[in-house]
Amino acid sequence: MKTVLIGAGNLATNLGRALLKAGHDVVQVYSRTEASASELATIAGGAPVTDLNDVTNDADVYIIAVKDSVIGDVVPALCKGRECKVFIHTAGSVPMSVFEGMALHYGVLYPMQTFSKASKVDFGTIPCFVEANDDLAFTVINNLAGSLSERVMLLSTEQRRFLHLAAVFACNFVNHCYEVSAEILRKNGIPFDVMLPLIDETARKVHELKPIDAQTGPAVRYDQNIIRSQADMLKDNPLFRQIYESMSISIHHAAMRKENAE
Amino acid sequence: MKTVLIGAGNLATNLGRALLKAGHDVVQVYSRTEASASELATIAGGAPVTDLNDVTNDADVYIIAVKDSVIGDVVPALCKGRECKVFIHTAGSVPMSVFEGMALHYGVLYPMQTFSKASKVDFGTIPCFVEANDDLAFTVINNLAGSLSERVMLLSTEQRRFLHLAAVFACNFVNHCYEVSAEILRKNGIPFDVMLPLIDETARKVHELKPIDAQTGPAVRYDQNIIRSQADMLKDNPLFRQIYESMSISIHHAAMRKENAE
Repeated sequence: MKTVLIGAGNLATNLGRALLKAGHDVVQVYSRTEASASELATIAGGAPVTDLNDVTNDADVYIIAVKDSVIGDVVPALCKGRECKVFIHTAGSVPMSVFEGMALHYGVLYPMQTFSKASKVDFGTIPCFVEANDDLAFTVINNLAGSLSERVMLLSTEQRRFLHLAAVFACNFVNHCYEVSAEILRKNGIPFDVMLPLIDETARKVHELKPIDAQTGPAVRYDQNIIRSQADMLKDNPLFRQIYESMSISIHHAAMRKENAE
Repeated sequence: MKTVLIGAGNLATNLGRALLKAGHDVVQVYSRTEASASELATIAGGAPVTDLNDVTNDADVYIIAVKDSVIGDVVPALCKGRECKVFIHTAGSVPMSVFEGMALHYGVLYPMQTFSKASKVDFGTIPCFVEANDDLAFTVINNLAGSLSERVMLLSTEQRRFLHLAAVFACNFVNHCYEVSAEILRKNGIPFDVMLPLIDETARKVHELKPIDAQTGPAVRYDQNIIRSQADMLKDNPLFRQIYESMSISIHHAAMRKENAE
């Protein structure tokens, strides 16, 4: 399919590579900055553009892969004058209705992964969640998603909101736990890489056990002595301490719920 | 070395397997319950015992691998009458001084990993942190650790306290984030395994990037609209909501600190 890629950030870059690999034709790459547009155009093919007025009408699908907060600004300018094309955004937290009244055929293709420009992820293994406003858009978006990934699921805007929230916990909050861990180690002269085997095993375990069944540590039994003394060790950082306390209570409650259910 | 293993839980089981593999002689396995002692004795070798009074004097090293909270109860009964032997505990959060006045040669061997009985981890890759009260104990414990793992580090009780706290964040709290994520998905009819590629990639990323540099998502920029609406989605679960809020604020503060430092 002939596609135009709006955006040149982490997601757009990985999407550009995947589109190329799947045999699609990226005819243009739009970014506000010339350097970013050119860089991605070199990778994915097509011409770089920095003005939405210069976006071509000669494409089948327009894929918006910009920051969630900017999508609302891009949509009107992008859709205007080409209302019959198919428009897609790729954001977990933005409703499909952002296109309402702006275009005829539209939808969402949300690839749930954490992207960085440098590290190439295998797009084929990324779960992609699709939604469309009509049959034409659905056929196009579903085919496109199927050409990029082995795992495509239909999901409503409302479900996707919760999926995105679940991803915030499993990715952003998990990464912040790594951050706090790294900070504690740094202050005590211990290299962060000693933590990697534990990090890997913790992630690996939930491939075979439910997270609730994989839980260990002092908070499960709410071991007051350890919890109080560990909270005290964070007294210089009230934000870390607050995380420590809310996590410990929530882990203990989850363990009690599990016990009562068994 | 001739060893006695005190405990038959997850850690003791994995330790027993590793001792056997490294060519050590496990002469006894102690557990309060007959079934547990027998089960591990079958795996690691040696005789099962359920009374600390029946523990043999004919061993070089006594390894305590019971719950952190029980170590203080086990030590006096175990050390009495065999003060010249080498005693080791394996807990991250318990000071070496738990042996003070009870034995002459003692120390700590803390293998930092999350263990379950069923899944066999490769002990050789587990970072082991050792501490000893004198040269004799150090030689024995350091050699023992070196025979089990490729990565042995000397660490004081005070450093180990912080290491353990860092591990609580990187393992227990991370796993609780997985738990919350699974719970949100379950309530919305989405299978948890769609989250696994994101979980794996989030863990993989910190092998090459510092966690602070790997962070993404709405909290980095403190995107108020998304944060407020996501917090609202957790209104039925005040504990999850509290985690959401304290995490989001802390992520934002970390991102600002990073920006100011650059």
